[in-house]
Amino acid sequence: MPQIDGRSSSQDLADLFGSHEGDLAIGGIPLTNLAEQFGTPLYVYDAERIRGAYRHLSETVAGLAGIYYSIKANPNPAIAHVLVEEGAGLEIASAAEYIAARAAGAQPKRILFAGPGKRPDELAYVIERGIGEIHLESHEEIARVAAIGQGLGVEVPVALRINPSATAQGGAMRMGGKPSPFGFDEEGLEAVIDVVSAHPSLRLAGIHLFVGTQILDADVLAGQWAHGLRLAVRAAQHLGRPLDTIDLGGGLGIPYFQGETALDLQRLGERIQDLRTFVRNQPLIRDAAVVIEPGRFLVGPAGLYAGQVLASKISRGTRFLVIDGGMHHHLAASGNLGQVIKRDYPVVAATSRGRETSPCIVVGPLCTPLDTLARQAMLPDLRAGELVAILQSGAYGLTASPIGFLSHPSPAEVLVDGGRISLIRARGSFEAPITLPGGGGQGSHVG
Amino acid sequence: MPQIDGRSSSQDLADLFGSHEGDLAIGGIPLTNLAEQFGTPLYVYDAERIRGAYRHLSETVAGLAGIYYSIKANPNPAIAHVLVEEGAGLEIASAAEYIAARAAGAQPKRILFAGPGKRPDELAYVIERGIGEIHLESHEEIARVAAIGQGLGVEVPVALRINPSATAQGGAMRMGGKPSPFGFDEEGLEAVIDVVSAHPSLRLAGIHLFVGTQILDADVLAGQWAHGLRLAVRAAQHLGRPLDTIDLGGGLGIPYFQGETALDLQRLGERIQDLRTFVRNQPLIRDAAVVIEPGRFLVGPAGLYAGQVLASKISRGTRFLVIDGGMHHHLAASGNLGQVIKRDYPVVAATSRGRETSPCIVVGPLCTPLDTLARQAMLPDLRAGELVAILQSGAYGLTASPIGFLSHPSPAEVLVDGGRISLIRARGSFEAPITLPGGGGQGSHVG
Repeated sequence: MPQIDGRSSSQDLADLFGSHEGDLAIGGIPLTNLAEQFGTPLYVYDAERIRGAYRHLSETVAGLAGIYYSIKANPNPAIAHVLVEEGAGLEIASAAEYIAARAAGAQPKRILFAGPGKRPDELAYVIERGIGEIHLESHEEIARVAAIGQGLGVEVPVALRINPSATAQGGAMRMGGKPSPFGFDEEGLEAVIDVVSAHPSLRLAGIHLFVGTQILDADVLAGQWAHGLRLAVRAAQHLGRPLDTIDLGGGLGIPYFQGETALDLQRLGERIQDLRTFVRNQPLIRDAAVVIEPGRFLVGPAGLYAGQVLASKISRGTRFLVIDGGMHHHLAASGNLGQVIKRDYPVVAATSRGRETSPCIVVGPLCTPLDTLARQAMLPDLRAGELVAILQSGAYGLTASPIGFLSHPSPAEVLVDGGRISLIRARGSFEAPITLPGGGGQGSHVG
Repeated sequence: MPQIDGRSSSQDLADLFGSHEGDLAIGGIPLTNLAEQFGTPLYVYDAERIRGAYRHLSETVAGLAGIYYSIKANPNPAIAHVLVEEGAGLEIASAAEYIAARAAGAQPKRILFAGPGKRPDELAYVIERGIGEIHLESHEEIARVAAIGQGLGVEVPVALRINPSATAQGGAMRMGGKPSPFGFDEEGLEAVIDVVSAHPSLRLAGIHLFVGTQILDADVLAGQWAHGLRLAVRAAQHLGRPLDTIDLGGGLGIPYFQGETALDLQRLGERIQDLRTFVRNQPLIRDAAVVIEPGRFLVGPAGLYAGQVLASKISRGTRFLVIDGGMHHHLAASGNLGQVIKRDYPVVAATSRGRETSPCIVVGPLCTPLDTLARQAMLPDLRAGELVAILQSGAYGLTASPIGFLSHPSPAEVLVDGGRISLIRARGSFEAPITLPGGGGQGSHVG
């Protein structure tokens, strides 16, 4: 598994996919071939890179934590299946994600259900079918889950999501230390434990924290996890028995922008030696199953979004490439998924060998200035029919985008696994543009 | 048709829908009844308000321009049908929008096709089936449309989209005067007219401008239209014959935020008297069909998005309402559809009569701080099961949102027309969450 050291550049990131005679290739297959076979725009994922990220992280946290893949990052069952096969559990946030998790091969007890606003009907849906743990986030939810469990005559394993009083520094978003709609304030931990414990249909298995997202600093992450472990001890002390589970959350970031550095797993590994020792010395959590729930980190770098140039034009001295893909399939790349400052995702041409590059703006086909995919791209003199690829696009891509906006067909999703090509979501048509979720081509192997 | 005078407030805007025994009602039907019947979250549209907006605008621009509804604002065929019945043409931006326009009852010659990146296959699709006009935006597109027309042996009516050198002031986005991926720079108007004229399969019918969006100042709009008319004369002079069509674009805004004032149609009417005179005195454009293409203005105020409270909680002194609707259905309300500053859409409770309000934050069910629907709402002490409605949500709502994000079922869409209730898009299910486009319930009248 190659690592990005120091600054990441678009070409460095493209090289992690590999190349074929100098052209961008995924698992040895040129992107141009995939685009010919499946049409554009197109999402392509590399199963070997997903596996590589999982194994590297798994080794790093070995002896401390297991990994649950946060399926919201990319809920395509074929993607989740790669991780389930590796041994990952799955963290879901809706009933349909439960269905996707099952389709990916996860056993019910290896599925965790989180989210600040679970509907009564989806709670009932997953409890009836079996669930590893439900993370409770409000008093209303405690009462709802307890009532469903009572009605079904089952004891539901639950964890309390805690909104920590300490803030993890260094992430793109901070979810701790301030007022929050997520979970219960740390200050009231003991009181809410008592509420849950009073319900005979609830089994309080553990606690869940999630303090940040897109964290690239190993020390920040380790510090957050340390806080979680201390809180777990405090919860167990009040509970008067050991915890079954401790969910330290996700938040492991990947580099998107110039100057960002990949999370240093070696450093992370060094930092968590102390955490292992801490856990070993605490009888109340020593036997708990500690988990982390990364999403983006596992699948983000393994995916790209490719579009075909429809027009190349100069307007008042500025070069524009209009491609057939846009913000409707990749909102995050357009800078509209919560970014305060719009910075470019790494963008490369599929065929760039020996070609000079110059600045250009890459836009999509929508009638809005919001549909800008790169503001300062360095690309060759691309012509209609040539391909542009947006990297780091395996997470929060298609399903985090307004796919119905202007009603263009949704793109195919293709999984490449060492020379084997699978169409894991069929392309939409003019008559039936949207193929989310569960495209017709799911699981059909065409290569 | 009520008008908002001066500052708009959430309650003033709610009153435009009307009330029933003090509770929010659409076309006389309480929102609570609709939520019971169709579930939440839910989009509700008021056909009478759509008609009212169309008629008021139509009267304002009478003698100068006709109206083409920009279907991208809300492509539900039942919504577009209300406007087609009133006499509107439709402006589309994709082949699937063509299908929606036909489903709405529009004749092919009353459909205009715009967009900076039209695919060859969608151009062929609409040209084969008949189209009022295609707006050309690049040299590649000129060649493509000419080739398709030649292959089919038809003359394709086209217009040139012009990127003006003057900038419309006062809109939320400016699309003129600077480098742009849209259309052809005004400076090169004559040269591109010559290119189009050289193709025997193209009929250059007119020009198209679109200089801004969300414009609330009548003078800005009138100034933009005046510039368009002057450009049309210039184009006709170079062409050496009168123009058939002049498309002055859209951009008519609606008030969303505290302190914003509705577009003053009376003032607009006064301002365009000069434009009527100008057109009458110019033989080269006197007989042209002038059109404007509003979207948001016609349907935005007529729609609301309603969610049910799942949890009410206080975290570190701040009150949060967690509702079952969120950014996945209404990205714009979360402030993530291009807004630089996140301001609250107008938010009200369905039942607020006689209840004191206090500040709160309204969030959706997604596991992300991005899923915040209102940061400074003033709402009563709502409890689980009660309804919150986000107003001004008829345009760029559902279809401009990441409906696949976390895989929650897509909401039902309901059209109320003077006491008659139509389910115009069915709700998704856990097994098949997404019902875009064309839900199973389309056109079934249940009230």
